[in-house]
Amino acid sequence: MAAYDFNDKIVSIPDYPQPGVIFKDITTLLRDAEGFQRAVDELSNHFINQGITKVVGAEARGFIIAAPVAYKLNAGLVPMRKPGKLPREVYSQEYGLEYGSDELQVHTDAITKDDRVLLVDDLIATGGTAVAQAKLLSKFGATLVGMAFLMELDYLNPRKVVREATDCDIFSLVHVS
Amino acid sequence: MAAYDFNDKIVSIPDYPQPGVIFKDITTLLRDAEGFQRAVDELSNHFINQGITKVVGAEARGFIIAAPVAYKLNAGLVPMRKPGKLPREVYSQEYGLEYGSDELQVHTDAITKDDRVLLVDDLIATGGTAVAQAKLLSKFGATLVGMAFLMELDYLNPRKVVREATDCDIFSLVHVS
Repeated sequence: MAAYDFNDKIVSIPDYPQPGVIFKDITTLLRDAEGFQRAVDELSNHFINQGITKVVGAEARGFIIAAPVAYKLNAGLVPMRKPGKLPREVYSQEYGLEYGSDELQVHTDAITKDDRVLLVDDLIATGGTAVAQAKLLSKFGATLVGMAFLMELDYLNPRKVVREATDCDIFSLVHVS
Repeated sequence: MAAYDFNDKIVSIPDYPQPGVIFKDITTLLRDAEGFQRAVDELSNHFINQGITKVVGAEARGFIIAAPVAYKLNAGLVPMRKPGKLPREVYSQEYGLEYGSDELQVHTDAITKDDRVLLVDDLIATGGTAVAQAKLLSKFGATLVGMAFLMELDYLNPRKVVREATDCDIFSLVHVS
């Protein structure tokens, strides 16, 4: 297949949602059938044949990438959600964002110690969400095989903080330097 | 393939999030690799070979079903989001929920008049969200081919209000009477 320029399909929005922040709008990539297919395929193929049993995605945009990757890898899909969204017993983890802070929750029966887990998100910025997710996963005793991101903001150096929490394989499709 | 009982994988939570409401927890189905695959396959297969070019999903749980269906149908994925989440020019539509009210937005350049659109959501309850989505779609002049839901609460009779907005094909995997 010819090379596909994912970056060319992503729109940069200056000063959104706050002054000084450059928001990367991926909806222009998602709506492009070829781009969406290729993004899911390339993220999935990097982790294929590694026995992934559960793919974890964080609310809300993370679901858009995590769910089709779970489908492609023939794995279950585990949503990590904002507080008050999951109706049964949960583990909770607070974390810092590029701007502000938040909390993620996951059902305590969503994952077992025998699961081989792939974290998938649209974006890794400061790495705060990924570290919070790794901390939540550690409560299950499962194996964190890797993390897959549509986009990684290299200039925020997220791998430094993620590497303090896990040495799993990190793969990003688009790097923003 | 042997029959698969989707309903058996869905947990009913009484009085959540409000007294008198029975919440249907689909996370137990999503985490089951076979159940998740089959759900996406059956919803997609109903609309295959109908030239779907865009699949529309609503924040947040809708993304979990809409995104893999878009992937399977080789279509683009268009997110409809809560206010303040989309960075460029949007169309907006308020709507009533089973409990409370809300608003959905979509980028004005997300869909063209030539698109053949499938709406996908995890749940149709009163039908308010689906009608709001159909109203948003009408602004683009695109063809609304159908609506696909993981679960339909027949006892709330959502098709009555949806039929006032569109005569498109409605398909639900699980019916709750």
